[in-house]
Amino acid sequence: MTKNATVITAKPASLDAMNSLIGNDLKSVNNLILERVKNEIPLISDIITHIVSSGGKRIRPALTLICAQLCNYNGNRHIPLAAAVEFIHTATLLHDDVVDESKLRRGLPTANELFGNKASVLVGDFLLSQAFQFMVADGSLKVLRILSDASAVIAKGEVMQLMTEGEPQTTIQNYLDVVSAKTAVLFASACELGAVVSEKPELESKLRNFGMSIGTAFQLIDDALDYVADEKSLGKSVGDDFREGKVTLPIILAYEAGSSEEKNFWTRTLSDLNQCNEDLQQAISLLEKHQSIAKTISMAGEYCENARQELMAFPPSLSRTALFDLVDFCANRAY
Amino acid sequence: MTKNATVITAKPASLDAMNSLIGNDLKSVNNLILERVKNEIPLISDIITHIVSSGGKRIRPALTLICAQLCNYNGNRHIPLAAAVEFIHTATLLHDDVVDESKLRRGLPTANELFGNKASVLVGDFLLSQAFQFMVADGSLKVLRILSDASAVIAKGEVMQLMTEGEPQTTIQNYLDVVSAKTAVLFASACELGAVVSEKPELESKLRNFGMSIGTAFQLIDDALDYVADEKSLGKSVGDDFREGKVTLPIILAYEAGSSEEKNFWTRTLSDLNQCNEDLQQAISLLEKHQSIAKTISMAGEYCENARQELMAFPPSLSRTALFDLVDFCANRAY
Repeated sequence: MTKNATVITAKPASLDAMNSLIGNDLKSVNNLILERVKNEIPLISDIITHIVSSGGKRIRPALTLICAQLCNYNGNRHIPLAAAVEFIHTATLLHDDVVDESKLRRGLPTANELFGNKASVLVGDFLLSQAFQFMVADGSLKVLRILSDASAVIAKGEVMQLMTEGEPQTTIQNYLDVVSAKTAVLFASACELGAVVSEKPELESKLRNFGMSIGTAFQLIDDALDYVADEKSLGKSVGDDFREGKVTLPIILAYEAGSSEEKNFWTRTLSDLNQCNEDLQQAISLLEKHQSIAKTISMAGEYCENARQELMAFPPSLSRTALFDLVDFCANRAY
Repeated sequence: MTKNATVITAKPASLDAMNSLIGNDLKSVNNLILERVKNEIPLISDIITHIVSSGGKRIRPALTLICAQLCNYNGNRHIPLAAAVEFIHTATLLHDDVVDESKLRRGLPTANELFGNKASVLVGDFLLSQAFQFMVADGSLKVLRILSDASAVIAKGEVMQLMTEGEPQTTIQNYLDVVSAKTAVLFASACELGAVVSEKPELESKLRNFGMSIGTAFQLIDDALDYVADEKSLGKSVGDDFREGKVTLPIILAYEAGSSEEKNFWTRTLSDLNQCNEDLQQAISLLEKHQSIAKTISMAGEYCENARQELMAFPPSLSRTALFDLVDFCANRAY
């Protein structure tokens, strides 16, 4: 909540257009989620309510809603499908936080911290199943194929990420494969659904490509921000990735360009997880020395540009403008 | 493998009929699983191969296969759907073992013990998504509805079980609700699929009811065996449930009938998890004193009888005989 408010105040123009276009739809998605959860057993409803009310940006379901508008969709199928997208994402978050042993998300205690790892694993499973129930109720096999594929690819991306933990010599390509799988594919699917519900198959691949690009940019910037954002505004601790030995693009770039002494530093801190208090500051200094953060943000900028190119194929409209704003907002998160 | 062989030798007649009827189909299911996994990234294929080759009974996919035969099915849809059922079950096992911190399953180290909790959580997610991919490829919304409902109910059952941990005053009804959700519903769905692929809607509820009954009996006997089976033949440690504070029917019966001193014992050992070496033996003595194991097995016998009644509605056939044998095999596991 605080986080959202802060960001929107800092960049007043950015998401306003989108929020006013999809505001009612997003309320319907939230209501559907809360309605669906209301009659659940307490531990399930407590955890889901905790996540739903903890101020996430809802960027993935928002993409489904705004892309449906971009395709001039007039029905209601996009509401439960946006909820399905959010549930798949939330299930991933719950399991991620268990896997990463995270204590904070968006400035609030994580569900695993509040309710325990066991409940987080099981409620994550419940949410994923619930997402499929929404899709089955929608009744489109195309939707089911898109989101079951996305869900399998996300899980695979998370495993791939696990395998690169503590491996600063990971290649940029391998890192981009992980980003594509664990993040961009759900963005892509969320966007594609807008064309699917509108029954405009000729627009599916355009929106999918748009989603892949914006999703990749989003993750690159997230990985850069882990080393620069201050805790108050981002609601997460600076250096989380570093402490977990997570190898992201800034690290890969600094490792590649580093002296053998620097390589030893990365191996000690990330591979051996042998870290002392000053190491995070030293890591940040090395990232600055090799301009790793700037290069990461610059690469994100290229993906943002790809996203804009895909949008150019659509005729001008309020929703297209809102999507351009979203790309700018994403690019500007880094500053 | 050893476990299966041991059991089959001890009860030579029991599963022979079923195994010879569905042997080829079950091989096709195994091949499909291994084929599907072959090209996956190493950590995923290692974990799945470990589970597939660790000698599970495959009772759930076997139910789909034999029930399809009972309905005179001639096609091939039952193979990938049986694999989907097995994947849903395996995903649950992986997450269960993380949640329960189990170290042994069927006498072998659990996946979480060998590959770590993180990998087990993520590969479980992958398997669940893969199950949905099999269903989407099958293309029947009815199948997708049955198994997405089952998957949501299983997750809910696991959460309900988590909430009764350390609560020996749990009611029998609550316990049965948990068993129904976490175990019986997947048995029921596995059986129902036999009628669905055969396009015999009039048989769906009969097979579903059969599956609910046999699944409930299966879990009741499993919970009884936790206090009596010897580690060599069952491949799991006696008293696992006790050590984890899991409240199963034998405990509920002994607690209900127990003196206040005995109630204090159950509270100390299960609610406070304050256990010393002699406590498991004392727990087993109390279960014997109140005939809790015998009563649990007797209740399982009633569910087996219900299962037989459902089968009576089908005309005599080799597959019906094999299913009667399976019921007997299930009932006899306890002795």
